[in-house]
Amino acid sequence: MEKPYVVGIDIGGTNSVYGVVDARGTILYGGSIKTGKYADINDYVRELSAGLKQVIDQAGGPEKIKGIGVGAPNGNFFNGCIEFAPNLPWKGKIPLAQLISESVHNIPVALTNDANAAAIGEMTYGAARGMKDFIEITLGTGVGSGIVIGGNLVYGHDGFAGELGHVTVRRNNGRLCGCGRSGCLEAYCSATGVARTAREYLSIRSEDSVLRNLDPDEITSKDVFDAAMKNDKIALDIFEATGTMLGEAFTNFVAFSSPEAIILFGGLTKAGDLLMNPIKRAMDKNMLKVFEGKTKVIFSQLKESDAAVLGASALGWEVKEQDPNLVL
Amino acid sequence: MEKPYVVGIDIGGTNSVYGVVDARGTILYGGSIKTGKYADINDYVRELSAGLKQVIDQAGGPEKIKGIGVGAPNGNFFNGCIEFAPNLPWKGKIPLAQLISESVHNIPVALTNDANAAAIGEMTYGAARGMKDFIEITLGTGVGSGIVIGGNLVYGHDGFAGELGHVTVRRNNGRLCGCGRSGCLEAYCSATGVARTAREYLSIRSEDSVLRNLDPDEITSKDVFDAAMKNDKIALDIFEATGTMLGEAFTNFVAFSSPEAIILFGGLTKAGDLLMNPIKRAMDKNMLKVFEGKTKVIFSQLKESDAAVLGASALGWEVKEQDPNLVL
Repeated sequence: MEKPYVVGIDIGGTNSVYGVVDARGTILYGGSIKTGKYADINDYVRELSAGLKQVIDQAGGPEKIKGIGVGAPNGNFFNGCIEFAPNLPWKGKIPLAQLISESVHNIPVALTNDANAAAIGEMTYGAARGMKDFIEITLGTGVGSGIVIGGNLVYGHDGFAGELGHVTVRRNNGRLCGCGRSGCLEAYCSATGVARTAREYLSIRSEDSVLRNLDPDEITSKDVFDAAMKNDKIALDIFEATGTMLGEAFTNFVAFSSPEAIILFGGLTKAGDLLMNPIKRAMDKNMLKVFEGKTKVIFSQLKESDAAVLGASALGWEVKEQDPNLVL
Repeated sequence: MEKPYVVGIDIGGTNSVYGVVDARGTILYGGSIKTGKYADINDYVRELSAGLKQVIDQAGGPEKIKGIGVGAPNGNFFNGCIEFAPNLPWKGKIPLAQLISESVHNIPVALTNDANAAAIGEMTYGAARGMKDFIEITLGTGVGSGIVIGGNLVYGHDGFAGELGHVTVRRNNGRLCGCGRSGCLEAYCSATGVARTAREYLSIRSEDSVLRNLDPDEITSKDVFDAAMKNDKIALDIFEATGTMLGEAFTNFVAFSSPEAIILFGGLTKAGDLLMNPIKRAMDKNMLKVFEGKTKVIFSQLKESDAAVLGASALGWEVKEQDPNLVL
């Protein structure tokens, strides 16, 4: 009998969420652990594996599981490693697919970029159904991307293509980014980037703002959103600037792969039109004539809590037991 | 009997070069006309067709020709049109594949971007043999690009992907570009961009320079190269700045598709190390850690005079007589 389930694991800077998924994309059993709590990768794998074994048992045991798919920052599809992920506690090159497989009944494990996993999920269940050329942009703690061209995810020659959060958008005096470089899109347009913009505006500008009632170091993108909803001028300007920078960057992405759509995913998309309107204005203003009005910008149609796990799980259907690239 | 030849046509802002090509990539008969001389597209097609018919007759007549491939700025592979090409005399949307086919014995015609044609040529005969992921950058009158991912040219959803000469590299006070926008890579790093940088440096800076002996409006990238070969400080600085901007832009391209190589093609590559050294320095300095040292930058191995025609001609082997997308 064909094994009826896969497991998806989404590893974020804050949480690692996992679930057992059936062929129709229903998450049957799930759980999560705090990524940041485990400075040692072995402690992390031990705790994660315990949780995985529990949900796998609930689903009927390892013989029911076809494969495990992992979406992780800087995840390399070709060798199953997380490599130099700036937002995770573990430095260097971590053979995570191998470590998980060894700890969880030797079930085969495939691993990719978390944003690539989201793009696969979008293509299978979401706004990109039927599309062959689109870019998924994830706006969370960081900014990630999954690029689909001609119906295939772009991995590049080394498995790491699609790091659009780290295109340089400010050459001079750019903000320091978690990656160690300066001026990356992620340093401005992630949830943490929005909070940084808030601190910057509050210190540079003199207008009144409800954000001044908060400890600057504790301000989150959610606080900025709440303030904008109250028509707070500084908060509105922050989203205007964030959306404008995204839209400007998107015009460059369109010049590269001319996608049918750019799909926005992740916590920051809760800002809705506050973000979407300046994105569209900036794209209309900056687009090369030949691309004008051709690329849609839309929000993901995946429920955020499930999308990353579903996307990662989709890899589990395709993983091969004997693939030497996937188990080192 | 299988038709033994194809025709390749390379349309540039200055010259349109064509040739009859055999299956081994030898140009048997060829010719050229001045693109800029024909403000009316019908005059251009009449003159071009006369030349094409002549070389086709030399090759034994139309029954020997399998197809005609055209490389043209802003050429759309999907519909055979040149659309809004800023460096050509004809405005709007020109159904060139159809016009040529109608004028030249109804031989089927396929058309693409001139830079895409160069990339196809590089993959078939040049430095990209055996590569599945590379970017061809053409440094001529303008800056163009042909992107290959997984062994396939990237056309995008509309046929126009790969306009990397028009990514915005300077957001503020950027140079006006031929496309009507400001701050494009092409405005700085094309042959004309190099000449503009020369005029800029000569007016801003006060040092002596052999370039001051020339009429500023007549300075070409060749003049700057010749001056740099004489160790002229301003000329050396111009190539340093040009290469640095290219290298900075390339780091962003790598973040997109993580190619095995970026291959430089076109007249400006005659500058050799003057251009290559600052490109490599800028890439080493700016590259995201995960991509460090992975992407080669190399010069094309195609003879420049033949490459564009050979690349375009490769399309001629694939064109289908009845393809409704190629003959409107």
